[in-house]
Amino acid sequence: MDFVRSEGLIAATFTPFYPNGELNLSIIPQYAAKLKNSGISGVFVCGSSGEGLLMNTEERKDVAEAWIPYAAKNFRIIIHVGSTSTKISKELTAHANSIGANAIGCMGPCCFQPKDTQSLVEFCQEVALSAPNLPFYYYHIPNTSGVYVKMEDFLIMANKVIPNLAGLKFTSMDLMEMLSCATLENKKFDIIHGHDETLLAGLVLGIKAAIGTTYNFMAPVFNELIKKFQQKNLNEALEIQTYVNQIIKIMLSTGSPISGGKAMMKLSGIDCGPCRLPLKNLSDEQIAQLKEKLEGIGYFDMPWK
Amino acid sequence: MDFVRSEGLIAATFTPFYPNGELNLSIIPQYAAKLKNSGISGVFVCGSSGEGLLMNTEERKDVAEAWIPYAAKNFRIIIHVGSTSTKISKELTAHANSIGANAIGCMGPCCFQPKDTQSLVEFCQEVALSAPNLPFYYYHIPNTSGVYVKMEDFLIMANKVIPNLAGLKFTSMDLMEMLSCATLENKKFDIIHGHDETLLAGLVLGIKAAIGTTYNFMAPVFNELIKKFQQKNLNEALEIQTYVNQIIKIMLSTGSPISGGKAMMKLSGIDCGPCRLPLKNLSDEQIAQLKEKLEGIGYFDMPWK
Amino acid sequence: MDFVRSEGLIAATFTPFYPNGELNLSIIPQYAAKLKNSGISGVFVCGSSGEGLLMNTEERKDVAEAWIPYAAKNFRIIIHVGSTSTKISKELTAHANSIGANAIGCMGPCCFQPKDTQSLVEFCQEVALSAPNLPFYYYHIPNTSGVYVKMEDFLIMANKVIPNLAGLKFTSMDLMEMLSCATLENKKFDIIHGHDETLLAGLVLGIKAAIGTTYNFMAPVFNELIKKFQQKNLNEALEIQTYVNQIIKIMLSTGSPISGGKAMMKLSGIDCGPCRLPLKNLSDEQIAQLKEKLEGIGYFDMPWK
Amino acid sequence: MDFVRSEGLIAATFTPFYPNGELNLSIIPQYAAKLKNSGISGVFVCGSSGEGLLMNTEERKDVAEAWIPYAAKNFRIIIHVGSTSTKISKELTAHANSIGANAIGCMGPCCFQPKDTQSLVEFCQEVALSAPNLPFYYYHIPNTSGVYVKMEDFLIMANKVIPNLAGLKFTSMDLMEMLSCATLENKKFDIIHGHDETLLAGLVLGIKAAIGTTYNFMAPVFNELIKKFQQKNLNEALEIQTYVNQIIKIMLSTGSPISGGKAMMKLSGIDCGPCRLPLKNLSDEQIAQLKEKLEGIGYFDMPWK
Repeated sequence: MDFVRSEGLIAATFTPFYPNGELNLSIIPQYAAKLKNSGISGVFVCGSSGEGLLMNTEERKDVAEAWIPYAAKNFRIIIHVGSTSTKISKELTAHANSIGANAIGCMGPCCFQPKDTQSLVEFCQEVALSAPNLPFYYYHIPNTSGVYVKMEDFLIMANKVIPNLAGLKFTSMDLMEMLSCATLENKKFDIIHGHDETLLAGLVLGIKAAIGTTYNFMAPVFNELIKKFQQKNLNEALEIQTYVNQIIKIMLSTGSPISGGKAMMKLSGIDCGPCRLPLKNLSDEQIAQLKEKLEGIGYFDMPWK
Repeated sequence: MDFVRSEGLIAATFTPFYPNGELNLSIIPQYAAKLKNSGISGVFVCGSSGEGLLMNTEERKDVAEAWIPYAAKNFRIIIHVGSTSTKISKELTAHANSIGANAIGCMGPCCFQPKDTQSLVEFCQEVALSAPNLPFYYYHIPNTSGVYVKMEDFLIMANKVIPNLAGLKFTSMDLMEMLSCATLENKKFDIIHGHDETLLAGLVLGIKAAIGTTYNFMAPVFNELIKKFQQKNLNEALEIQTYVNQIIKIMLSTGSPISGGKAMMKLSGIDCGPCRLPLKNLSDEQIAQLKEKLEGIGYFDMPWK
Repeated sequence: MDFVRSEGLIAATFTPFYPNGELNLSIIPQYAAKLKNSGISGVFVCGSSGEGLLMNTEERKDVAEAWIPYAAKNFRIIIHVGSTSTKISKELTAHANSIGANAIGCMGPCCFQPKDTQSLVEFCQEVALSAPNLPFYYYHIPNTSGVYVKMEDFLIMANKVIPNLAGLKFTSMDLMEMLSCATLENKKFDIIHGHDETLLAGLVLGIKAAIGTTYNFMAPVFNELIKKFQQKNLNEALEIQTYVNQIIKIMLSTGSPISGGKAMMKLSGIDCGPCRLPLKNLSDEQIAQLKEKLEGIGYFDMPWK
Repeated sequence: MDFVRSEGLIAATFTPFYPNGELNLSIIPQYAAKLKNSGISGVFVCGSSGEGLLMNTEERKDVAEAWIPYAAKNFRIIIHVGSTSTKISKELTAHANSIGANAIGCMGPCCFQPKDTQSLVEFCQEVALSAPNLPFYYYHIPNTSGVYVKMEDFLIMANKVIPNLAGLKFTSMDLMEMLSCATLENKKFDIIHGHDETLLAGLVLGIKAAIGTTYNFMAPVFNELIKKFQQKNLNEALEIQTYVNQIIKIMLSTGSPISGGKAMMKLSGIDCGPCRLPLKNLSDEQIAQLKEKLEGIGYFDMPWK
C-alpha cells in the first residue's frame, strides 16, 4: 500500500477534560488552530499523552471526531486505537476509517503482553485488517506498554501479513534499533521519532518526522532546531536541543510527564484540565514551582514563538 | 461494612467463546452445574483466566449476567471489573451491582501502573464507591498487572477511604506479605489465596479460601487436600499438593496457562473454545501432547472426581 | 556421593568488622558459643549476610578458618565461595576443603549472569569439581544474584555432571519451585529453606532445614515454631510465625536487612561492627528507633531465649 | 584536578587467554601495535569486554602491567578496577597508580547494587581516593552492573567529594542523560560515548571520544565516520554508521557479544582465545557462520583498513 511519508513535527495531543473529569471537546477548535499556527504537521490523537486507554470507547470516538474537521494535506490526523482488547481496537479502527482519519496507531496490548514476535503481529494484524485501506502504525513504547518485542523482527514478519503497515512511532531510547528499522526493506517504512529530548540524534540518523508531547507547546523552537540541522549549523542545533532538554527536565521533575505537560499547555493558553486516574495531578504548589523554574531558565522569553 | 468471609474453593471461570471468537454463553448452565457438583463455593468471573480485559464492556456485562442466575448462599458470584479506565470499571461495577452480584474484584490498572500506594488507592476508591454497598476485593496479581504496590500499605490506606473494602485476591508468591495482610487490623480482611500450587502453604498460614484456575476442573482433589489438612494428616495433604503440582506443571508447560487450562477444561467435558489474542492457542499437536502427559501421570484415573 | 542431609536451623553468619572496616575475628569464639547454646545446627559462612563478595580472597579464607574449630557432628560449617570469577571461587573451594569444611555453597555469578541452564551448570561444575569430595550446594537467591535460571532444570542437568551436588539453599518466594526441587529424582536433593519469614510454609511442604539471618539471634523462638509444627499444634506454630514476622518487618524497615540484622545481633550481645560499602549502615537514630520498635512488641521479653 | 580530555577512539581491550583459560600475555605487544596502527587513541583494560570481573586480583594486575609499556601521549591506558569489593578495587587502584596508568575506570558494584545516589558515590569515593591523583571515570553500564542510579545526580554529588573525578564511560542508550551529563557544571566532565552502534548520534550531541569493543578491529572505518561528520558530510557519515551497524548486528547475533568480538578479533589476526565462564564460547559452526555472514556483507573488503 502506498502511504504518505511523515515529515516534521506531529503533536501527541492531550485530551481536554472538565474539572469534573468529563470530556471537554469545546476546546478543540482553539487547540487545533494553535497547533496549525505553530508549524505542526499533524496530530496523534488518544495516544499515551492523550490518555487514550483511560477513556471508554464512546469517549475515544468523540475525541477522534472532534479532531477530524481539521484534517488537511499538511495536517494529518492519526488516531490511536490501542487497548487491551482486539474487540475494542477493531471498533475504534473501523470508526477512525469511517470518519476519514489519515492513519491509525496502535500500542501493543498492556495486558498479557506478547513476549514473542508472532503474538504481537497477530494482534496487530487483527486490528489493522479491520480497516485495510488505512495506514497502520505500530506504536512502540515498551516502557509504557510492557511489550519488548524487537521492532526489526516485528516489521519483517508484519510486512508479510499486514498490507497496510506504514511504519512505527518509535518511542524507545534504542536508537540503533530505530536506525535498523529505518533502513529495513529498502527504507520502506515510515519510522517516526518518539523522544523529543533526542530529536537531534534522530535527525542525524536520517529520521524526518517526530511525534511528541512537547511539540504541543514548543513546536517553533523544535522547528528551529530542525532548520539549523538542515543548514548544517550543528553547534546551534545542539545548543537548541540542550536548551529544550532543560525545559523537558523541569517538566519531568513534576513526577508526572502528562500532568506536567498539561500544566505547560495551560501556560501556553490551552487549558486541557486534569488528568484521569491512575495518573496524578499536580498540586497548586507544584504548578507554581513549575512556573518558577520555567521562568528561571527564560522559557517565557524564548525567541521562538 | 459487613461482608461474608470466603471459604473453600472459588473457580476463576474461563469465558467460553465460539471457534470464531464470539461469546458462547449457551454453555454456562452446564458449566455452573459442573462446578456446583464438584464442591466449588463460588466463581470469580471475567478475571485474568476469564480474559476480562480482552473483551469489550458489553461482552463483560453479558458474561456477568449469564452467571448471576446460579448465585446461592453457598455459591457466590464475584465479578471482576478491572480495566485500564475508571470510566469502564465504574460502569461494570454499577452493572454488577444492579444485577445482584455478591461482590466485585478489581485488578490494578495495567496502563500507567501506579507506583505509589496513594494512586492505587484513589483508583480503587473511584471504582469501589460507584457501588458502595457491594464488597470490593482488590485483585493483587503483580506479574500480570505490573502493579507492585505493597498490599499491607494498600490495605491500611484503603481501609480509611473505601468503606466497602472486603479484602484481596492475593496472587503473588510473597506469602510473608499474604500473612501480614491476613493479620492486619485485627484480621479484618478477607484474604483469598491465589496460587493453586501453594494452597497447602496458604492453609498452614491460616487462609480459608482460594480462587484459582485449576479449581475449574480439579476441585475434588483440592477439597481432599483441604480435608486432610483439617484432619492434620499433613503428610497426605503434602502428597496431594505434590501430585496436583505435577499436573499444573504439565498445564504450564504448554507455554500458555489459560489456553492450557481451557484445554484441560475441555477434557473435563466443558468446551470453552479458543482464547482471544494476544493469548496463544494450543495446536492440535500440543493438545495431544498435553493429554498424553496427563495420562502418563494418571490424571484421568484420579480417585477424587 | 553420599552427604549428610541438613536438619534444623543454620545461621547465615555475619562477618564481624572493626569500626575501621577491617576483619575482627576475635569475636568468633563468643559468636560460635552463642549459636551453639541457642540450638543452631550449623553455619553458612561468608554468604550474603556474611558480606562474602565484599571481601577479598584472603579475608574470606581468614573468616572460614576462624569458624572451622567449631565444626562438630551437630554443627556443620558450610563455606560460601560464590564470586564473579571461577578462578576466585575455585581457590576458595580448594581452601575450604583443605581446612575441613563440611560443605560449600555457591551463588550464581552476579556479573554476566547466566540466562540459560547450561551456562550456570558449567560455572558451578567448574567450581564444584575443584573439591570433588566436598558436598556442593547451589545458592539460589535470584533477587540478589540476578540469576533466574529455573532450579528444577538446574538440578536435572547438574545432577549429571556434578557428582558432589548436594542440593540448594533456596532463597526465593516461589515455594512451588521449592517443592518441585524437593521431590525431584526420588527426593535425592537436600533443599534448604531460605526465607525465615515463611519457615512454617516450608515445613508443611516437607522441608527439614533452613538457613537464615535471623536465626543468628532468634533461633530459640524458631525452634519452638518447629516443635509446635511437629506436634501438630498448627495454630500455635502460626502464632509464632506471625509474631516473628512482625520482628522481621521491623528489621527490614531499617531499609537495610544486613545492617538491621547486625544491629539486632549487637542487641543480643555480639557486636559484629559496621557493614562494608555499598551496604548502608544505620545511624544512631535509626538504631534507637529499631530498639524502641522492638521493645514496643515485647521482643526483649520473648519467653523463648 | 586537571585531567586530559579524551578524544577519538579508545579500544575496550579483550583479555587474551590460552585455550586452557590461563592468561596469555605474550600477545599484548602485537595487539598494542595493531591498535596503534589503526588509529586508536587509548585502551580501556580489564573492563567488561576484558572480562575484568572474571579474573582474580593478581591476574588483573598482570594484564594491567602488560599494557603499561605502550602508554604514550596519544595512547592513554585506562585500567578498569571495578569489582564487588572496595577492598579489591582499592588494591587494583593503588596498583594502577603505582605502575603509571593514565586513569582508572570503575563500574558500579554488581552485588548489592546501590539503589540511591549516595551509596554509589560513597563506594566510588572510597575507591577513587585510594589514588587521589589519578583521574577517576565512573563506568555507567546499567544493563551489566544493575546499577541504575541517574548519572546527573551522581556527578553532582560525586563532584563534591571526589576531587579526581574525571567523567564517565557512558554505556547506556539514554542519550538525553548523556547530553545532560556532558553539559553539567559548565561542561566540566569528560563524557565518553559507550555504544559503538550510536556513535554518530553521540557526535552530533557533542561527544568527542568513545570507548568500545568493535574499535579493536574496526577503528579505521569508525575514524572515517568521525572524519565525515567533522566535514559535515552527514549523509556519508550515516551510511558508514548504517553499514557498521550491520556488522555489529552480525556480531551480536552470535548471542554473545564478547565471544563474538573475540572471534572477529581473531579474524583480524589477533587470537585472544576463549572467554571464561559464565560467558559462552562460540562453536566452530557458529564461527563459520559468523565468517560467512561477514563475507556476505563485504566485511573483509571494506575500503577502510
